[in-house]
This record gives sequence, structure tokens and C-alpha cells, in this order.
Amino acid sequence: MPAFHDRPRFPRGFRCASRNVGLKPEAKDLTLFVSEVEANAAAVFTRNHFPGAPIILGRETIKGGRLRAIVANSKVSNVATGAAGVENARRMAAAAAKELDTDAGRVLVSSTGVIGVPLPIEKIERGVVGMAGELQDDPLVGAEGIMTTDSFPKAFSCSVGDATITWVAKGSGMIEPNMATMLAYIFTDAALDAPTLDRLLRSAVQRSFNMLSVDTDTSTSDTCAILANGLAGPVDETTFREALVAGCIKMTETLGRDGEGAEHLLRVTVRGALNDHEARRVAKSVLNSPLVKTMVHGADPNVGRLLMAVGKCFECTIKPASTDAWINGFQVVKGGERLSFDDDTVRQALKREVVDLEIALGVGDARAVAYGCDLTKGYIEENAAYYSS
Amino acid sequence: MPAFHDRPRFPRGFRCASRNVGLKPEAKDLTLFVSEVEANAAAVFTRNHFPGAPIILGRETIKGGRLRAIVANSKVSNVATGAAGVENARRMAAAAAKELDTDAGRVLVSSTGVIGVPLPIEKIERGVVGMAGELQDDPLVGAEGIMTTDSFPKAFSCSVGDATITWVAKGSGMIEPNMATMLAYIFTDAALDAPTLDRLLRSAVQRSFNMLSVDTDTSTSDTCAILANGLAGPVDETTFREALVAGCIKMTETLGRDGEGAEHLLRVTVRGALNDHEARRVAKSVLNSPLVKTMVHGADPNVGRLLMAVGKCFECTIKPASTDAWINGFQVVKGGERLSFDDDTVRQALKREVVDLEIALGVGDARAVAYGCDLTKGYIEENAAYYSS
Repeated sequence: MPAFHDRPRFPRGFRCASRNVGLKPEAKDLTLFVSEVEANAAAVFTRNHFPGAPIILGRETIKGGRLRAIVANSKVSNVATGAAGVENARRMAAAAAKELDTDAGRVLVSSTGVIGVPLPIEKIERGVVGMAGELQDDPLVGAEGIMTTDSFPKAFSCSVGDATITWVAKGSGMIEPNMATMLAYIFTDAALDAPTLDRLLRSAVQRSFNMLSVDTDTSTSDTCAILANGLAGPVDETTFREALVAGCIKMTETLGRDGEGAEHLLRVTVRGALNDHEARRVAKSVLNSPLVKTMVHGADPNVGRLLMAVGKCFECTIKPASTDAWINGFQVVKGGERLSFDDDTVRQALKREVVDLEIALGVGDARAVAYGCDLTKGYIEENAAYYSS
Repeated sequence: MPAFHDRPRFPRGFRCASRNVGLKPEAKDLTLFVSEVEANAAAVFTRNHFPGAPIILGRETIKGGRLRAIVANSKVSNVATGAAGVENARRMAAAAAKELDTDAGRVLVSSTGVIGVPLPIEKIERGVVGMAGELQDDPLVGAEGIMTTDSFPKAFSCSVGDATITWVAKGSGMIEPNMATMLAYIFTDAALDAPTLDRLLRSAVQRSFNMLSVDTDTSTSDTCAILANGLAGPVDETTFREALVAGCIKMTETLGRDGEGAEHLLRVTVRGALNDHEARRVAKSVLNSPLVKTMVHGADPNVGRLLMAVGKCFECTIKPASTDAWINGFQVVKGGERLSFDDDTVRQALKREVVDLEIALGVGDARAVAYGCDLTKGYIEENAAYYSS
């Protein structure tokens, strides 16, 4: 586990700026992340069949393996907007490129917000002018411009030898990424080529963002990109990989804890599964069960629901007689049967901000951890009027 | 579509009784359904890997293909209770059999309620004594004794030629049945043999209860059984099959509308899918999306969420350019793009008690309908303290 810095900072050569350009009434809604020199880059995107226009463009852009900047707006996601939407994404890349005196093919575009509403591209084109002069060193400023229902901006960093890695992301709702999370950007000054970045990113994402679910809904805009500008020179790849994974898991936990309406970070560890696929499947099933999530929310020691959620993985190898379960280290199920325990002890365990559920299946050696949150009235409130508010 | 009776009634020879035997403070908690002569019977049960003790026993009982009675309790589900639980289920069958002067192998047992709590079998054994003398003709009385969080008892009936079919069920939460719903009993005086009943039941369940989801959670107690005592003689099988399917769909809709916290019945029709499997998969994905469910709850015309929920069926054949969508008959998506429409029109459509979402995929001829409800603060409230309350 790397030591994360007390305050997030950028690697050498990276800076950012964010502004309100009129998409939201007052809050910041446009962010630029810039490397002073071209960086090697890799990215993974949503697998949703209705990818947003920025995803369609981004898949093309990332083929070059080189980026100078990321431009991202919140409030409108530019999804389900057809050919006009893709044209608007291109105009957004071009506007940022012009401001930064670079090529549009070196700018990754992201948009997040309501689906199916035309992107107010003129506001963005006008709004980006002059932002190059506002670039500064605090990653949280960039994180602010991409927030939707996030309750705080998300960024942190750590050192790897002489290099730095910085994570910036937003999450909150419509979050069960597959190949990437909503918007997560990773910046480093380590020298790594694009194919290496791609390999390291995919492997880290598999254990982190791809194990996150706030609400089982997979966004049409999920993007996770890594930029390495090389200004710190080469790093030890093993140390870098370990730091990358640890930071991606830390950001995954941060996104889970700040899921829409969430009051708890929920972590589900499954061990003793037949294989990795089944470990991940069971962990997600427990994590996503509304009855488990409301049990955590209400600190209600209704532990039979854990077995229900394990047992509904019909296609997995589950043996009741070898199934055990723990809540924050306190064993509640042994051999598929609920242990008799003091309700208050379990109630207290469920009241902690971080709730760890552990399931031992006893049928193999595979292990997986899934990340999410409880289900609250706050989630209903935010999502019953998201479009209209 | 058969004409359902204004008030539910039983087929010839069926009666029921229900009582409070002390499992709940005051409400009825034990029900007997009885046929005066042995009936041919078939049943389907949950596929959850942690089946309740009554399911383990029921799978054995139904092999005989003959039933005289069903005994069912609410409040405690007798799940995750090990060998002692199965023994208690046997004692429950024996107690009912003794009261009815029949064989324990002719009594189907069901239990519904909290998982992992020992069944108070002595209360049931004492409580069932004398119930044979209370048997009466109103199916709603039996429905009352099996309610958990249901807000009303569920029963209706229709005629098929000279015969009658009667449905009695309970639902509410932990409802995404697979092979059957929580507890649903179908009684008829038509003369049909057990293998025919089994075939007709499985086919009807596939299009009805198996397309129901309140919350994606699959109960450990799901049971759907049909009893045919033959007192009305033979019926036309086609007419019977159509009535059986129609009644199962009507009960499915009744359970959806009364899902925990529900304020709307939500129906999702998918047509133009590549095959039946994909039609069902996409319909369930839209039906189960928390963001679609909260959109319906808030009557918020955030229609892009429909595309998100279709698009997250990664393994299905989805072509954005051929995807259309309607809300209560009003088209909101054409060719994968959100149409521009008057928000208020869609808001009004979403406010109806029954909300029909229709998706045309344009890639084949398959069709499926899924049934469920909106997601409300009432669901959170009921489930954050179900065990403790």
C-alpha cells in the first residue's frame, strides 16, 4: 500500500482549470486537464450499447496512444444525440485544442449528466477561451468541474519512487461500470509506453472500478483514462503497478462511500469460491441485493438475507453446508445456518461507516472484493426528480 | 381472456381456514387449504441455493403427484435452520394431516417470513387443532393467513366450462422468482392428471411469475402449486391453458402492484428482439433498473435511462439505430435518439397507476413482458427494519 499524500498534487507537468460556462446555474461545469508535453495514454470505456458521443470519439482518439489534454463537462452527457452529438464532441475537442495550441486528436473529451439532451456546444466553445491562462496545481479544482450528484470532489495522489500518480474521478449514480467507471482520470509523470499503460490500466480496473456498484445501472459515459508524460523518467514497474491498483481501489471505495444517498461504504469479500468468475459473481450479488443494502442502512441484523443473496447465484457452485458469513468480523452464519447471536452486537457492527461483509464458500480458493453502498431514501429522492431538478 | 368472478370463490370441494396461532401478535399466521377428495397436483419451487426446509420437504411430497391439503404459516420462513428445520416442517405436515385425518405425504407445507429463525413448531401443532371445523368457502380468508408485508390479501377466480380455477398468493418483497413466485396456490375442480398439470403450470409460470421482479432478490421459499380435484370432470385443455396463463399474469400484476412500497404497476414490453431469451433479458433489465424505477416513481421524464437500461445488456443484440421506445403509448425514443417532446405530456403519462414501457429493438421477432413496480421510500422503510419490527 503506497502512502497517499495529505493533499492531492499533480505529477510534474500536469495542471488543470475549471469554470462555470453556463451549463449549470452557478457551479463549475467545465474542466481542462493538461500536460505541458504530450503523454502516452490508455483508456477503457463503457460497454453500454448506447455509448455517448464522447465515448464514440474517445475510442478513436485513444488509438493514437498520445494525449495532451482532457476536456470534460458536467450537466449534459451528450448521449442518445445521434450524429449531431458526435459532431458536437468533435467541436468540443477542437475548441480545447485551439485554446491549448495542440491537435484535436490529442484531446480526450468527456461529458456527464442527463442523457438525451443536446450539448450546448456554443457555451462550451465560448467558455473554454482563456482557460489556458487559469491552469493551476490543485487536482481538486479539476474534480469540481466534473461533479454531478457527487457530494464532494474526488482526487488524491501518491509517490512511486521519483514519480507521482494522481487520481481524479466522479461517480455517484448509474454506477456499475463494466470496463471503467463513470469518469476517472489518472495522471503520472512516470515514463511508461502506451501498451504498458493499457495493460496496467485494464488489470487495475478489473480489481477496482469493475467491482464497484452503486445501483447496478451502467452509465453510457463511463471512462477511465491514464496519462503518463514521462517527466519523472522510468519507474520500477512492479512498484508502479501495486500503487496503481491500490489507488484505483481507494478511488473505488471513495466513489462507493459517496454513492447517491449513501451513508455507508459496503465491502463484500467472497473467498473459497470455485473460481474468480464465481467469486466476483457472488460478491456482486450480495453487494447489489436491495435487501442486503437496506439491512445495512437500517443496521437491522436480518442476516438470512446474506444467504438469500448468495443462493440466488443459480449457476454458481454453492454448498450450504460449507457456507460461513461474517459482519465486520463477527460470525453470523456457519455451515449455511444462522448462528444464534446477540442482536445488539450485530446491530452495532452494522452501524459502522464501513461495513465489511465476508462470505466463505468453502468450495475452492478464489477470492473477490466488491464495493458499493447502502440503499437509502436519499437515493430515491435524488433520482425521482433528477431530470426535472 | 377469461371473465374473472366479481368475488373470488373456490372450485367444488375446496375450502380453507386461517387463524392466529401466536407467531404474530394478533394477525392471522396459519392457513389450511383443503380438498375434500385427493387432488392431482404439481408444483415448482425456488432455485435459490438455500431453499427453506418446506421446499426441501415439498420437493419430496410433490413427487407423489397427489395432495389433500396445503398448510402455510407466515412470520417465520424456516430457512437456514438445518436438519432441525426439516424435522419441524415434517411435524407441521403431520399435525395438519392428523387434523384432517389424512396422510402427511398428502400435505404440502409452506412457511414465509424471516430467514434463519427457528420455527415455533409447538405453537403450530397446538394451533392447527380444531381448524378442520372452521373450513369455509372464501379464498380471501386463506390468503390473509399467509400475508407478510402484503397490503391486501390476494385471491380471484374464473370459470372454465363447468370448472373453476382459483388463485391465492402472497408476494411483496424478496421477489424475483425463478421457477415460481413467493407463495402462489392454484385450485381447480377440473379433471387433469399430474403430468399435464406440471406441463401447464411450468409453461404458465414462465410467462407470468418468472417475469415478475419487485427487487431482484430471489426468495428462499418461492412455491407455486396447482391442485386439481377433478370434481367438475374433464375440461377443454386449450381453454383451460389460456385461462391458467391469463390468471397467472393477473396474479403477477397484482403482486407487482403490491410490491413493497410500490405506488405503480410497471410493465415492460420488449418486441423485435433477436430471440425469446434476449427479449426477456432486456425486459428484466429495464424493469429492474433503479434509475428507471425511480423515474417512474417521480414521474420524471428522464427517458434516456430507458436506453441506458437496454444498453447494459452487453451480451444482447442491440442496434441503437433501430431502437424505439414508448411510455404509455407516447413515443419518446426513435432510432436510438431521444425525441424532443413536451415534458408535461410524458410526466402525465408517468403518473398513471399502470405505467407501460415499450421497447422495440428492431432486430428480430421475439417479444416478452416483465412485471414489477416503482422504487420508493416505502421500500427502504419496510426493509431497513423488517427483522427488528
